[in-house]
Amino acid sequence: MEPFALKNALENVRATTPLVHNITNYVTVNDCANVLLAIGASPIMSDEPAEVEDITSICGGLTINIGTLNVRTISSMFAAGERAGDLGHTIVLDPVGAGASKLRTKTASDLLDKLSVSVVRGNMSEFKALVGRASTTHGVDVCPDDAVTEDNLASSAAFARDCAAQTGAVVAITGAIDLVSDGTQTYAIRNGSPVMGRITGAGCMLSCVCAAYVTANPDAPLEATVAAVTSMGLAGQQAAQRMGRLDGNGSFRTYLLDALYRLDGDTLETGAQIALVNL
Amino acid sequence: MEPFALKNALENVRATTPLVHNITNYVTVNDCANVLLAIGASPIMSDEPAEVEDITSICGGLTINIGTLNVRTISSMFAAGERAGDLGHTIVLDPVGAGASKLRTKTASDLLDKLSVSVVRGNMSEFKALVGRASTTHGVDVCPDDAVTEDNLASSAAFARDCAAQTGAVVAITGAIDLVSDGTQTYAIRNGSPVMGRITGAGCMLSCVCAAYVTANPDAPLEATVAAVTSMGLAGQQAAQRMGRLDGNGSFRTYLLDALYRLDGDTLETGAQIALVNL
Amino acid sequence: MEPFALKNALENVRATTPLVHNITNYVTVNDCANVLLAIGASPIMSDEPAEVEDITSICGGLTINIGTLNVRTISSMFAAGERAGDLGHTIVLDPVGAGASKLRTKTASDLLDKLSVSVVRGNMSEFKALVGRASTTHGVDVCPDDAVTEDNLASSAAFARDCAAQTGAVVAITGAIDLVSDGTQTYAIRNGSPVMGRITGAGCMLSCVCAAYVTANPDAPLEATVAAVTSMGLAGQQAAQRMGRLDGNGSFRTYLLDALYRLDGDTLETGAQIALVNL
Repeated sequence: MEPFALKNALENVRATTPLVHNITNYVTVNDCANVLLAIGASPIMSDEPAEVEDITSICGGLTINIGTLNVRTISSMFAAGERAGDLGHTIVLDPVGAGASKLRTKTASDLLDKLSVSVVRGNMSEFKALVGRASTTHGVDVCPDDAVTEDNLASSAAFARDCAAQTGAVVAITGAIDLVSDGTQTYAIRNGSPVMGRITGAGCMLSCVCAAYVTANPDAPLEATVAAVTSMGLAGQQAAQRMGRLDGNGSFRTYLLDALYRLDGDTLETGAQIALVNL
Repeated sequence: MEPFALKNALENVRATTPLVHNITNYVTVNDCANVLLAIGASPIMSDEPAEVEDITSICGGLTINIGTLNVRTISSMFAAGERAGDLGHTIVLDPVGAGASKLRTKTASDLLDKLSVSVVRGNMSEFKALVGRASTTHGVDVCPDDAVTEDNLASSAAFARDCAAQTGAVVAITGAIDLVSDGTQTYAIRNGSPVMGRITGAGCMLSCVCAAYVTANPDAPLEATVAAVTSMGLAGQQAAQRMGRLDGNGSFRTYLLDALYRLDGDTLETGAQIALVNL
Repeated sequence: MEPFALKNALENVRATTPLVHNITNYVTVNDCANVLLAIGASPIMSDEPAEVEDITSICGGLTINIGTLNVRTISSMFAAGERAGDLGHTIVLDPVGAGASKLRTKTASDLLDKLSVSVVRGNMSEFKALVGRASTTHGVDVCPDDAVTEDNLASSAAFARDCAAQTGAVVAITGAIDLVSDGTQTYAIRNGSPVMGRITGAGCMLSCVCAAYVTANPDAPLEATVAAVTSMGLAGQQAAQRMGRLDGNGSFRTYLLDALYRLDGDTLETGAQIALVNL
């Protein structure tokens, strides 16, 4: 991927202000809305079956996040997703906590089967649960045994590639090292900060940012997803660098939004640590 | 309106700590609670039909915000609103996203018809949808074509006046220029900052602040609404001025709450940019 | 209680990263998740009856907070609570707004009767409502008449002790002075800051922190609860001390999370203001 693709991808978000419909959890929903505004997109939230088709119709992208799913919102996820698919909209699926309950695993799997999902963004444990390989779970966080490391990078990247090939979606498996694949090309992204794991919602926010980037760059979903993941990772690094002696995860969360708000294309290209993985 | 009314209006909030019941969306609900605490009021949130009448009975004001309405909470909005009306409480309606779905437009319209609404606070696109003039929508944000500007100020103010006359409520149409009318007098308020549009919830927060001010100043709903809108606008200006080189919408949101927390009556009067519109 | 117990209690949280299931309100849920991450625990939120038993089974602790209860989530509270009880997990009950509606008072009372509650954390007005002594309510905040002061400390502490003896749970009645009792020993904790009452969720956050501490220190629920209450109070003091001229409740909320994130055992022991109450 050419470096200039990153800059263009970001500038397309800023120039087009993509309107993104989010059916998401009530834990991190405020951060999801603010992160979309930070990156230059426009959020709308709705999970009522009686209106989600109307709402998604006026948008360009849809994020479906199962973080606090319930019977009512699950039906909204399918209704909105089908309408969004009919309209050719970007659909990002975030299978939060897949593996933590039968309902989550089944719902995430059914959404992936029935909808035209553009991007799936989750951690390695969630992806293992989705494809039936999970043996353990640690709630909404990745199991330590599942973390992507330099040692298991080749096998992890092959797994990402296979997930993408199997689902037909771009796959973003994020953690200490992020992997993005479309089933053909697989990238490892080494931006980010460990502090991102000490706030709630870094993953949820990233899924929304992916929706904004892919909606604004509809012809290049792989590159747009790489740009989104890199943007969030670089913002996380900048936020961590900004932390002072008294700052903790409260300030970090604020700084992360600030960094995305201030991010420009040149800084993104200079700071990006993206490598194609040879598989 | 005499300048001293602003100071008195704020001091009445601080002195009486009005208890405000909020049936609101889950996106910005935390900011709504914190903004009420910042201004000196006390929030309570409840949207369960089985208890909203009890809850609203112990309060002085009620904010109804349809930002993430659903079938269950809609019934709570009517139940609480009817009880609040019977008790003579302040009712503020925020028709978030009216025009973005048939359900939102109809619900906002029905609430306005059936309840004794004291104040309606929204953006111009939402008001146009409410009175049947909308042709387009941009989700929960104002359509660029609908923005109130110096060029269209006279016609926009006349529209605000007509909305107030038609509904019997004080109308606050907020944006780059804010308009507040009771159908007889119409004020333009030129406080505020463009950064307010880059956080989620500036409008939702303002609706809650209106509820606090009107509850604490029950004999002067027009002046109280003007004071609320001016307070939020001035706090937005102060928050924007406080932003440093690295700050974005994350810090701005924090600074906005801080500015309302620190706001005093003298500063409010000095900074207010309020003009009566001759119509 | 030996001072070193505080340090150990905190270090046990940090060392074991207890996974805590929270069925809580949508107002402060984000702060609840972030406070658990700040203190070193791991949060998961779920309130869907179809999955709460699965979710709570993989956790070590459960927080039940009735702040925005509804008919659906009430049934989740009982289902999760019964499963958590069967598994011997820590259960913390936060009876937010008990006394403000019949539904809240009855639900809190039923939860306390039917579940194996480890800790109840609330303000004095909520406890009075729970045991049938309430005559007034001020929503989710304590009634001024109910505040624990030096003047009524002996009778308040006796009330805390009686609540603990009657319920079989550790009782934490928090406010300007915090009281923690297991029915035998009763402690008064004089940490904290008045600014904690000017943000939403200080109480909700504390209940989650109690769940983390008791889950990580299962053999010493009284000491763990004292350590949790002291940790939150000390963090509140540090956050208030950090406030600058322009800071209000927005910054305070960030600083509070930061202080818990940075809290270490030695600082906790040095700053703790804990006294055994002679009854």
